[in-house]
Amino acid sequence: MITAADVSQAHLRIRGRIRRTPVVELPPGTFGLPAPLSLKLELLQHAGSFKPRGAFNRVLSSRAPAAGLIAASGGNHGAAVAHVGRALSLPTEIFVPEIAAPAKVARIRADGARVEVVGKTYAEALQASTRRAAETGALVVHAYDQPEVVAGQGTVALEWSEQAPPLDVVLVAVGGGGLLGGVAAWFDGRVRVVAVEPEGCPTLHRALQAGRPVDVEVGGIAADSLGARRIGELALEVARRTGVESVLVSDQAIREAWRTLWRELRVAAEPGGAAALAAILSGAWRARPGERVGVLVCGGNVDPALLGA
Amino acid sequence: MITAADVSQAHLRIRGRIRRTPVVELPPGTFGLPAPLSLKLELLQHAGSFKPRGAFNRVLSSRAPAAGLIAASGGNHGAAVAHVGRALSLPTEIFVPEIAAPAKVARIRADGARVEVVGKTYAEALQASTRRAAETGALVVHAYDQPEVVAGQGTVALEWSEQAPPLDVVLVAVGGGGLLGGVAAWFDGRVRVVAVEPEGCPTLHRALQAGRPVDVEVGGIAADSLGARRIGELALEVARRTGVESVLVSDQAIREAWRTLWRELRVAAEPGGAAALAAILSGAWRARPGERVGVLVCGGNVDPALLGA
Repeated sequence: MITAADVSQAHLRIRGRIRRTPVVELPPGTFGLPAPLSLKLELLQHAGSFKPRGAFNRVLSSRAPAAGLIAASGGNHGAAVAHVGRALSLPTEIFVPEIAAPAKVARIRADGARVEVVGKTYAEALQASTRRAAETGALVVHAYDQPEVVAGQGTVALEWSEQAPPLDVVLVAVGGGGLLGGVAAWFDGRVRVVAVEPEGCPTLHRALQAGRPVDVEVGGIAADSLGARRIGELALEVARRTGVESVLVSDQAIREAWRTLWRELRVAAEPGGAAALAAILSGAWRARPGERVGVLVCGGNVDPALLGA
Repeated sequence: MITAADVSQAHLRIRGRIRRTPVVELPPGTFGLPAPLSLKLELLQHAGSFKPRGAFNRVLSSRAPAAGLIAASGGNHGAAVAHVGRALSLPTEIFVPEIAAPAKVARIRADGARVEVVGKTYAEALQASTRRAAETGALVVHAYDQPEVVAGQGTVALEWSEQAPPLDVVLVAVGGGGLLGGVAAWFDGRVRVVAVEPEGCPTLHRALQAGRPVDVEVGGIAADSLGARRIGELALEVARRTGVESVLVSDQAIREAWRTLWRELRVAAEPGGAAALAAILSGAWRARPGERVGVLVCGGNVDPALLGA
């Protein structure tokens, strides 16, 4: 069980290592909202997403072995663990599936990590990394379902609480749920948390219906960052305990929000990073009168050429 | 003569109309600096640059005639005046030269402004707009050399003073000097101001040497936003009075800073918006020991496809 105290401890542990990302306050009426909108620009974090928060907390909570760090991900998590490895001078291995974008793999390598390309899917790369970790003794940094990872991701919410006037509700995108779990643990029901998922990867939505994590098919425009196959156990527990609301958005809504962030604000998010805003723009979620809304823009690892398309 | 009091009055006049753009504080050591670096993300302003500050101040200082607003610029200033016209429900005409980027012209039209394409250069478009203004009686909003415009641009510095711990020195890019003049007027020698220009458009540099505005050849990667032919009289007066330092940077340095902002921070600036940082990264300017540096990222109206190139 992850609590606000875990998030608070994570904050003290990692704050010298992560960026305090900026918040923009937009006036009432923006995107049709009844009160000021607080936009947390977490895409400006190291490695372009919130992921280093959890990875730093995982690694700084442990005595890192000589074998260093190991993780599976060709995306934001891989980039984050490579960043952490470099920052802490630890050897790092990242297992990526064959489908990983060459630009992301190049970036992971540029941070000095060793990249192993294994298998067609994330699941195969994860399996291979687990076998490898058993051989080498490296510290496994999971993409979302480890307590230190979830607590670390929650520090974005703690930081936000320090930066912005009190919020009534925050909207957060969900892939495997590490971010959602940490954010909901920090707010602990004091602030409503709305979990936004693409219709193409509804891991939390289905799990809340089923009462347990279930496998879903994964696809759509944001699958690259939000396309986990099932929600983490830890995140689901927090979501149920704190009453997280679940909302689905279409790919079309995500695309529109992604372009709006660029056109109106010069914020170059990735599609998954725009999913939370998509819930507002599309009307999939509506604020109550007078409610102060926060939207987390959680990642920006995108080919910028796509923004102009 | 533009003073801090003019900037302060502009701030009170326009603050309900402009965005309070965010500031990121980066730790000592970032880009080799001796103390924390304060990065003001003014590219998140309406219309993608600082320009609406001056345009709003110009228009809200006057009784806008029924004929509305008129300006010449195919770039950030044109987009800003179109935004102001829409926000204040005033008819707006923007004169652009034939070389103006189609995407920018489309954006100006999307804000409801009438676009007149006239002449090969900015100077020709400006002449045509001046003739037209004499016929219609529309309020002319100059791109940089009007007192209300300079004072309005200075509000970015006032706002920054409220947001960041006290700075010792700020770096600001220069085109026609509206921004530089406003910023230097606000800081009034209390904070050192470094004016950064591309080697290809050294309007202030040459004017400081000559003791008066002189025409320069205009070219290079940032000419699109910083390519004024000569510095404004108002800006030059402020620069000389307050002891602004002048630094030139190469196109190569600007390109590197532009890409660094994207790669390291997910800030999608335009080349001109990265010029101030280029002075630090290239070593063209060096901080003194312990000095707290501020860098203004002043615009983001770029084809994002170029960021990945």
